[in-house]
Amino acid sequence: MAPLFASIQADMAKVESRLQSELRHTDPFVDELAQRSFRMGGKRLRPALLLLAAQAVGEINDDHHTLAAVVEMIHTATLVHDDVLDEAAIRRHEDTVNARWNNQTSVLLGDYLFTHAFFLASSLETTLGCRTIGRATNTVCEGELRQTAASGNFSLTRSNYFEIIGAKTAALCACCCQLGAHYANADPQIVRSLDRFGHLLGIAFQIVDDLLDLVGEEQTVGKSLGTDLAKHRMTLPLIELRDQLDPEQQQKLQSLLEEPNAENMTTLIDWLDRSGALQQARELANDYARQAIQQLANLADSPAKRALQEIAAASVSRCA
Amino acid sequence: MAPLFASIQADMAKVESRLQSELRHTDPFVDELAQRSFRMGGKRLRPALLLLAAQAVGEINDDHHTLAAVVEMIHTATLVHDDVLDEAAIRRHEDTVNARWNNQTSVLLGDYLFTHAFFLASSLETTLGCRTIGRATNTVCEGELRQTAASGNFSLTRSNYFEIIGAKTAALCACCCQLGAHYANADPQIVRSLDRFGHLLGIAFQIVDDLLDLVGEEQTVGKSLGTDLAKHRMTLPLIELRDQLDPEQQQKLQSLLEEPNAENMTTLIDWLDRSGALQQARELANDYARQAIQQLANLADSPAKRALQEIAAASVSRCA
Repeated sequence: MAPLFASIQADMAKVESRLQSELRHTDPFVDELAQRSFRMGGKRLRPALLLLAAQAVGEINDDHHTLAAVVEMIHTATLVHDDVLDEAAIRRHEDTVNARWNNQTSVLLGDYLFTHAFFLASSLETTLGCRTIGRATNTVCEGELRQTAASGNFSLTRSNYFEIIGAKTAALCACCCQLGAHYANADPQIVRSLDRFGHLLGIAFQIVDDLLDLVGEEQTVGKSLGTDLAKHRMTLPLIELRDQLDPEQQQKLQSLLEEPNAENMTTLIDWLDRSGALQQARELANDYARQAIQQLANLADSPAKRALQEIAAASVSRCA
Repeated sequence: MAPLFASIQADMAKVESRLQSELRHTDPFVDELAQRSFRMGGKRLRPALLLLAAQAVGEINDDHHTLAAVVEMIHTATLVHDDVLDEAAIRRHEDTVNARWNNQTSVLLGDYLFTHAFFLASSLETTLGCRTIGRATNTVCEGELRQTAASGNFSLTRSNYFEIIGAKTAALCACCCQLGAHYANADPQIVRSLDRFGHLLGIAFQIVDDLLDLVGEEQTVGKSLGTDLAKHRMTLPLIELRDQLDPEQQQKLQSLLEEPNAENMTTLIDWLDRSGALQQARELANDYARQAIQQLANLADSPAKRALQEIAAASVSRCA
């Protein structure tokens, strides 16, 4: 996705060096962990969204660099804590902190990153950054808690699924785009469009992530897959399939899901494919990506606007 | 400790109802967890410190109620995450969230409380509350990380021990007292004295907690004890004992600590007692409590000032 970021290259470098300097520590253990977490984040999608939203509606300033570092730290904190939760063995092709150290260290490192991010956000002049990021991050946690509660719930509705991914994934993407536009002094209406763009993009992105968790290749995706099935989570393709089955077939599906062994999974993936459920989920992701792009209709053409459009397109082409 | 809070009773009730309403949620699972965490906090020492510091130097206002709710939420978040870390079986005489649900839920609930606290702090007019709380909370996490790294380090120095407890415990107490005084419009010098009071009190409090972890009664203290030994943590009494031994005896002490079974622990406690190490640690805690009280010397006499003095005295009388 790197060429999409050409127009913000210099600013991304500033964010990168900001992240690096913020996460330095005099204690060698804290320093090692913080530096390591800094390498985990991967593609820096959230800082890029924030900077591109700013550039698409105005000019990037130093508040944007600060906020971009903040959202990346928060995203990294959630990844570190996800690794505790999911006992994921692979993340970004490196051992997880959890596998190399232990749960205790992962929990504390995530907390360290969360609190550092909030401290950094409070260096801005007003409380708006803290408030927007505090609210979005709280929504992310609420979504993750609801997802935990929904584990093993074969009857999870489509609308519950969308509420959960709206909270756990889309809220932070929306927050990035909103902050980018707001701190570039955009009109409130434009800020709302960018907020909406981020939300719809986040939904598309998560549907695709859930698809890849079923049918992706670990080598390509770069993290542990099959997590949702192991955690008995109903994701969109499963919901689409379930909703077209009669009660007897639903019973069969539920039995497969209750024992996610290799044989059952092969049967399941085949069933999802033949029934058209995978394709339906792909189309829904495409719809969300298209709706996201529509939110940008009133913006003047610019490299930043085109990059945002391409990010939305690329988010769904991963599972084409 | 309740009678100490007589002068702030009405304000504590406001903080309590603020906490209760902030932690209500439309989702029943999130609501149940949040309400449960609200009952975990126990004696509400941190809100009380914040309100008493305010009252000792000026007047309590609504910002204080907000900030008091914030610091209690943050303290509760760290307790919830401590329960993941220490696999503690008892906390406030209730099952821990971790034992009733699982690590996943505990991690997310802690994150939910942290982020809610920061969101609430950002409802104040300026960023000062966010900044002070962000910095203190980050210091707490740093202290906990350093404590993890120090696990099993028989050579931990006295000064490392004080740095760790200064970060993991004293930073948040100092933050409470500082915010209380600052938001009551106290002079910067008075704010610094209160900050210092909180810091010294926190140190005294943690030394006593570490003593009780060795020689307290679970019934009286109300949480799992023996955690430090199980985690191979060098606390002050052990450091005092080690530093008075010759190399051969140190070797014997280290062997006892490496296998914290019941027999070894009886031998250890007896050794700590006979050597005077327990008494030395008690005296140091008393010194810190006295130094804390000295910081209040320039304040006019008032019920709030007397309550702060008594809290400092009570923090050490727990292990008299």
